[in-house]
Amino acid sequence: MPQLRIALAQVNATVGDLSGNASLVVDWTRKAREGGAHLVVFPEMVLTGYPVEDLAIRTSFARASAEALESLARTLEEAGLGDIATFVGYLEHDSVGPRNAAAVLHGGRVVARQCKHHLPNYGVFDERRYFKPGSSLDIVRINGVEVGMAICEDLWQDHGPTSALGDAGVDLVVSPNASPYERNKDDQRLPLVIRRAAEAGAPLAYCNLVGGQDELVFDGDSLVVSPDGHLIGRAPQFVEHLMLVDFDLPGGREYEQGQIGDFYVRRVFISDAIPAYEPLPAPRVFEPLSDEAEVWHALVTGLRDYVHKNGFRSVVFGLSGGIDSAVVAALAVDALGADSVHGISMPSSYSSDHSKSDAYDLAQRTGLHFTTEPIGDMVSVYVDQLKLTGLAEENIQARCRGMLLMGLSNQHGHLVLATGNKSELAVGYSTIYGDAVGGYAPIKDVFKTLVFSLARWRNTEAEKRGEVPPIPENSITKPPSAELRPGQVDTDSLPDYDLLDSLLTLYVDGDRGHDDLIAAGFDPALVDRVLRMVDKAEYKRRQYPPGTKISIKAFGRDRRLPITNGWREG
Amino acid sequence: MPQLRIALAQVNATVGDLSGNASLVVDWTRKAREGGAHLVVFPEMVLTGYPVEDLAIRTSFARASAEALESLARTLEEAGLGDIATFVGYLEHDSVGPRNAAAVLHGGRVVARQCKHHLPNYGVFDERRYFKPGSSLDIVRINGVEVGMAICEDLWQDHGPTSALGDAGVDLVVSPNASPYERNKDDQRLPLVIRRAAEAGAPLAYCNLVGGQDELVFDGDSLVVSPDGHLIGRAPQFVEHLMLVDFDLPGGREYEQGQIGDFYVRRVFISDAIPAYEPLPAPRVFEPLSDEAEVWHALVTGLRDYVHKNGFRSVVFGLSGGIDSAVVAALAVDALGADSVHGISMPSSYSSDHSKSDAYDLAQRTGLHFTTEPIGDMVSVYVDQLKLTGLAEENIQARCRGMLLMGLSNQHGHLVLATGNKSELAVGYSTIYGDAVGGYAPIKDVFKTLVFSLARWRNTEAEKRGEVPPIPENSITKPPSAELRPGQVDTDSLPDYDLLDSLLTLYVDGDRGHDDLIAAGFDPALVDRVLRMVDKAEYKRRQYPPGTKISIKAFGRDRRLPITNGWREG
Repeated sequence: MPQLRIALAQVNATVGDLSGNASLVVDWTRKAREGGAHLVVFPEMVLTGYPVEDLAIRTSFARASAEALESLARTLEEAGLGDIATFVGYLEHDSVGPRNAAAVLHGGRVVARQCKHHLPNYGVFDERRYFKPGSSLDIVRINGVEVGMAICEDLWQDHGPTSALGDAGVDLVVSPNASPYERNKDDQRLPLVIRRAAEAGAPLAYCNLVGGQDELVFDGDSLVVSPDGHLIGRAPQFVEHLMLVDFDLPGGREYEQGQIGDFYVRRVFISDAIPAYEPLPAPRVFEPLSDEAEVWHALVTGLRDYVHKNGFRSVVFGLSGGIDSAVVAALAVDALGADSVHGISMPSSYSSDHSKSDAYDLAQRTGLHFTTEPIGDMVSVYVDQLKLTGLAEENIQARCRGMLLMGLSNQHGHLVLATGNKSELAVGYSTIYGDAVGGYAPIKDVFKTLVFSLARWRNTEAEKRGEVPPIPENSITKPPSAELRPGQVDTDSLPDYDLLDSLLTLYVDGDRGHDDLIAAGFDPALVDRVLRMVDKAEYKRRQYPPGTKISIKAFGRDRRLPITNGWREG
Repeated sequence: MPQLRIALAQVNATVGDLSGNASLVVDWTRKAREGGAHLVVFPEMVLTGYPVEDLAIRTSFARASAEALESLARTLEEAGLGDIATFVGYLEHDSVGPRNAAAVLHGGRVVARQCKHHLPNYGVFDERRYFKPGSSLDIVRINGVEVGMAICEDLWQDHGPTSALGDAGVDLVVSPNASPYERNKDDQRLPLVIRRAAEAGAPLAYCNLVGGQDELVFDGDSLVVSPDGHLIGRAPQFVEHLMLVDFDLPGGREYEQGQIGDFYVRRVFISDAIPAYEPLPAPRVFEPLSDEAEVWHALVTGLRDYVHKNGFRSVVFGLSGGIDSAVVAALAVDALGADSVHGISMPSSYSSDHSKSDAYDLAQRTGLHFTTEPIGDMVSVYVDQLKLTGLAEENIQARCRGMLLMGLSNQHGHLVLATGNKSELAVGYSTIYGDAVGGYAPIKDVFKTLVFSLARWRNTEAEKRGEVPPIPENSITKPPSAELRPGQVDTDSLPDYDLLDSLLTLYVDGDRGHDDLIAAGFDPALVDRVLRMVDKAEYKRRQYPPGTKISIKAFGRDRRLPITNGWREG
């Protein structure tokens, strides 16, 4: 029976960086060769990165992508890697329009190519806006094994390309993916891949992207399953990884080409069966991370890649002594190392002693750079000159802090992090140009109650490893306060966070309406009050910096309400 | 031959305001009745406003829309308007999903309904994300006249619904639209409507929305054409308007129902022919506005509706004495009246005497409220405490001004306007949290050279009317400067605006690539420099407030590049 060793290269590409991504493909193809692989699969659109957004419709970029693909084929050949069949996703632009495509490179040439058929157009995806669908399938024979391909969403459809590949007869399906992380999504991927392997009647090798790209973070979690639903191998989450898998495939199926259902099937010959060799042991099956660990790694990865891919080396933010900035500090230290993290305590006359001491305590625990810059002098110029009172006086404090951080950013080159959480953002409990200042907002999609859970989880992890827990216990236990007037606490303006978050989870993440929420047992006055706050805060949310998305309904690119909006629930 | 008097109600709806929009329909149906109309057509999705964005997928909103439609039918009947066939666009949500729909209300009931077939998914449109397409056409017989309907984009397709209506046999096509303003777009609408009227073999009545909705502004420009391409009537741009048109139609065509091509055609009876009556004279054919006048009205309408629909009564912004803030001031005075406009001169030690005197001159000319608030004390606290130099010192001046305006906004309830233009935004010549502060940016989509043209045009208009030209001549003629360091002028950092704008027009609006631009004769070093500036500035542009869109490639909702972006042209 024909043997084939494949490699799944779960790598971290950067959108737009064609030459960097091409180098990544060469480097990992070399690793695949060192592992003895005959075929290597890279993630969806690895050559351009994903998602390219409006770069998809810039013809100079599409031309550069196609040229980079041809050039990559030659580079692989010149590097002595031309005999490995290399599956590389890229942006094609043909007479029909832009395409989300993948090619097979071999012997210095592009020997096969295929365009994605099912174009997702929901959630974070706008592919029907950007791409035209494909309707052909190129099946390549490698080592006498017939290998078909299904690009990402093409897997998620019943009676789609995998079904046609099954009808055409394939021995193996490889699937390049760029499937962003969402909490609990790994629970969906494995059953899906199992279903499609059964449909194709062949093993399925699912290779996913890893790393952060603006608001998205890709978790990897690449998989290989047998046609009878056995999990052969699983890659770890949030790290680059090469998975090697040996197949010994039955062959001898009926092979067809030409029009099969909605698809035109072409056969491409690369190589016949090779002499028998000693297979590798089965690859590891890495366990998915626990819920908190998974979220923590998603946030760390999203933050690190945003900072580094945008050319920054260090970050700065306000350290208030509260839980949000403490968690952001711990994330930043995990992502970048303590020496790249600058926490600024910016006390006002309303700041409590514990604000300053808890911030100092956190700095000692984590080793980050700590500075104190009082804001009293800035605030008093504004308050006195403009005669500000009430909310205007509260806001100017937050804004003086924002401007102070931007001044330090401009002077020293740090990226400013905004430390707000999803609960605040939902109800608009945030000052535009104040605490909303920054280039990135690491916990933008994390509800306050989850911020607390993550803090406890991270401290426990540290204890398990015999390290100092990064987050001061007092930041976890004291009542949250914005400290913009004397004795202020969050519960002056907001319901208790347990109650608020359970309501927001249903209204924001669950898209449930006013009447549903009352039927679910929430106090009608509370529902009215919270829904009005959420609906009013759209402008503030739009002005908030991007942040790592961990849920379907993050406030960001895939969620857009009108600003001018006369609709009120209830 | 059967007679029919129709009314096109070119009205200004507000997204989400179901009860306000329903009242609008009742009020304008009453006007139509007063004009003796038998049928009245409202714009696309008039009941919900357009575009509803993510409200489309909120089931509570879709339910409320459907209920509001039924309730509107009853209200019309109760108001004695039930005998007018009223064509009303709304959001439907049936077993297939959300729909962009329009219904015919008559006798207190919904007698016909139809869902948009062609869902645009480019530019400002995301309809394939939000709606499911329809495949049926309801043709209603009113006064013995067969009236078919084509919703907006359904007109823009060859061999689409209008062709099917022609095959089915109709005497008249009505078309509800929500077609946003774009410079020179009225040049496209009339030939299109003429082509479709010929395809349907019937007159076509095109009713468009008017007014501002966030970044979009709808210009009206409703049209009626005969099947032989004669322009029967044309409504004015940027104002609400009722157009009454009498038809005396041949009838006697072959009428079909059932499946016709891709559409299922239903026939609905409302009324037979009525006794002959004296027709009205033909409606007026309003001339389209000149280019500058059209842009000026678009900007005034967009600004006024954004301010009022969001519940503000007044605006505040920095008056620097320069051309941008002068044009914003003149727009704001035209949109809101001088008493609602607050201009603040915020001099620093680098401000020239002419900055202060030109700002004062503008205030005198327009009658807006004028205040001077020096920023020296705020700036020196930051510069001294944080030891800011160079760019950090320049930026803190712009930011102190932004915070000052926000303080006044919070204290007095004015909406802050950002005064930046498209050329600055394109190349990132703007300070985030500085001059970018605000809730709305009226000239965000206006290149600097067009800002100058508009200023001259507005002054000339004033002279024609015997009024004081609003914009000081010196603001038009002096060299532009940010005045953030001694003797600074824009040309220190940027090419001459004539050259810059011609390059940006090709690169931004025209999506032309690096090599194309050099082939077009631009200096390669200049192309490199400008393209790098544009590509780098995406984050700044995203943080800029919304502003009235006047071009296809405005920086806003329909244009989205990655922030983390390794692609560089050239």
